[in-house]
Amino acid sequence: MKKPVIPKKPVIPSEARDPNFGPRVRASFAKQHLMRTIGAMLEDVEPGRVAIRLPFREDLTQQHGFLHAGTIAAVADSACGYAALTLMPSDAAVLSIEFKVNMLAPAKGESIVARAEVIRGGRTIVVCRADVFALNDGQEKLVAAMQGTMMVVTGRDLTD
Amino acid sequence: MKKPVIPKKPVIPSEARDPNFGPRVRASFAKQHLMRTIGAMLEDVEPGRVAIRLPFREDLTQQHGFLHAGTIAAVADSACGYAALTLMPSDAAVLSIEFKVNMLAPAKGESIVARAEVIRGGRTIVVCRADVFALNDGQEKLVAAMQGTMMVVTGRDLTD
Amino acid sequence: MKKPVIPKKPVIPSEARDPNFGPRVRASFAKQHLMRTIGAMLEDVEPGRVAIRLPFREDLTQQHGFLHAGTIAAVADSACGYAALTLMPSDAAVLSIEFKVNMLAPAKGESIVARAEVIRGGRTIVVCRADVFALNDGQEKLVAAMQGTMMVVTGRDLTD
Amino acid sequence: MKKPVIPKKPVIPSEARDPNFGPRVRASFAKQHLMRTIGAMLEDVEPGRVAIRLPFREDLTQQHGFLHAGTIAAVADSACGYAALTLMPSDAAVLSIEFKVNMLAPAKGESIVARAEVIRGGRTIVVCRADVFALNDGQEKLVAAMQGTMMVVTGRDLTD
Repeated sequence: MKKPVIPKKPVIPSEARDPNFGPRVRASFAKQHLMRTIGAMLEDVEPGRVAIRLPFREDLTQQHGFLHAGTIAAVADSACGYAALTLMPSDAAVLSIEFKVNMLAPAKGESIVARAEVIRGGRTIVVCRADVFALNDGQEKLVAAMQGTMMVVTGRDLTD
Repeated sequence: MKKPVIPKKPVIPSEARDPNFGPRVRASFAKQHLMRTIGAMLEDVEPGRVAIRLPFREDLTQQHGFLHAGTIAAVADSACGYAALTLMPSDAAVLSIEFKVNMLAPAKGESIVARAEVIRGGRTIVVCRADVFALNDGQEKLVAAMQGTMMVVTGRDLTD
Repeated sequence: MKKPVIPKKPVIPSEARDPNFGPRVRASFAKQHLMRTIGAMLEDVEPGRVAIRLPFREDLTQQHGFLHAGTIAAVADSACGYAALTLMPSDAAVLSIEFKVNMLAPAKGESIVARAEVIRGGRTIVVCRADVFALNDGQEKLVAAMQGTMMVVTGRDLTD
Repeated sequence: MKKPVIPKKPVIPSEARDPNFGPRVRASFAKQHLMRTIGAMLEDVEPGRVAIRLPFREDLTQQHGFLHAGTIAAVADSACGYAALTLMPSDAAVLSIEFKVNMLAPAKGESIVARAEVIRGGRTIVVCRADVFALNDGQEKLVAAMQGTMMVVTGRDLTD
């Protein structure tokens, strides 16, 4: 007899403490100069989940013509940070403590999208994962995976 | 109109190249002395997925009475390595190149289980994620999350 | 004319806030059951730096006879945690938030030693690196490298 | 009697297999469009070591006015990749498998410099660390630390 298959994903904490999280994330994203510089767009904002899309641009590539790992990391890190921010109280700011990213396939195509989700919400520390897909001819392919740690910052003259 | 919710998980490569992957993983696991030393058990072996359970033991804890991060990492790393091995050809061995693990909550309870899955299979490099849950009073709680890189090794006198 | 060579290492914060840091680290280490179980020994405790040695034991190995990555991670994580603790106030406890470890060479020989140092001290977050060497025939070889994030915990009924 | 202090850094592999490593790294760096886009400059190239400098620019910042973690990661990743390339044979290309980066302090000032070094050279896998410093009023401050894994790629139509 076959044993039951390994169960599914961890439950994602999804209660936003600030009902105004959507506009707040959008306003903060608009202040991230780097996102504007590279042409990234906030695509989805849900409690505990954010997606950011980046159309391919040759001026963001490395020496072989693929998107640079730093470009990918930038988009995935912003997605993680804002996924974390959706669950924070209204007076908190978010800072990236650290992240780790695996490059899984060359990032080329029409655009990439980083989809981040909170896997552990907390008062001080929020942990996220992001999957980055490249879109090519209507097909999505996983090209990078991030796991990162975000910090809830209050009382330090930082706002989001 | 509401935009579609962020899509689901990356597709997991699931084609085992060695039809004998199950017995091979079980035989290799039986040779991991550390797993025997700490009392870990192979719970599930599917193509691209492995689960390892570890009953709680006080002699595996850190100074506050929770399972030591190294204990958790050991179980999650073995789960990742064997998830990778399920997809490798029969003459290959698996080595951990690196992993990163977040401790999400104190690991206590009756047992922990590490569920690993391959998120990118390749000829040389295989990337896995593992979620580690603690079981307490019939409830599972996510206590750690790993992302790691495994290597397919052939022709080096290593076998699994 | 040749440009100056790349400068040396980051300065390590080295001011211990608790003058009693040495005995405190030793007492906490003595409470880490896992360290006793695997036979690890605290070898050096300096402000911002800790070394832990582990004699090789076959019951701590993986399937090819090398020390398991989890064994190595356990020793390196404890070294990082206690390096962080040397700089913390006397009422604080240390928790590992996350770490990343690269396995650089098979860990075999007479013993391994993990040498950790704080690269960034802070009120809440402390970041450490550890180098793990294997000793064989009087020669040390670098076998693993860790970078990890530790948390200063106060007021949560945890003590070190 | 006091035991000897914890020894110093791991020895860095420093033998370049391609005597032409310097011009090769510079030529490849010149092809990294992203580096040109953000204004980064190759500052030092030694066997196993590379430094890249980035003058501060407001269009590379996050929402609080500091350099975005993705900007920092881009520079540090390129430094790691090219430090690895200095030790590779002349027909090899370098790809980033993964990296992990800790943000240690807000990155602001006149410029940042990422200093990377190989801590483990190998035929297929090269592991590097990078320290990123911010220069402000003639003072350097460590603002980020990376540990990453690079791959030696041959025979795949990729060249550096």
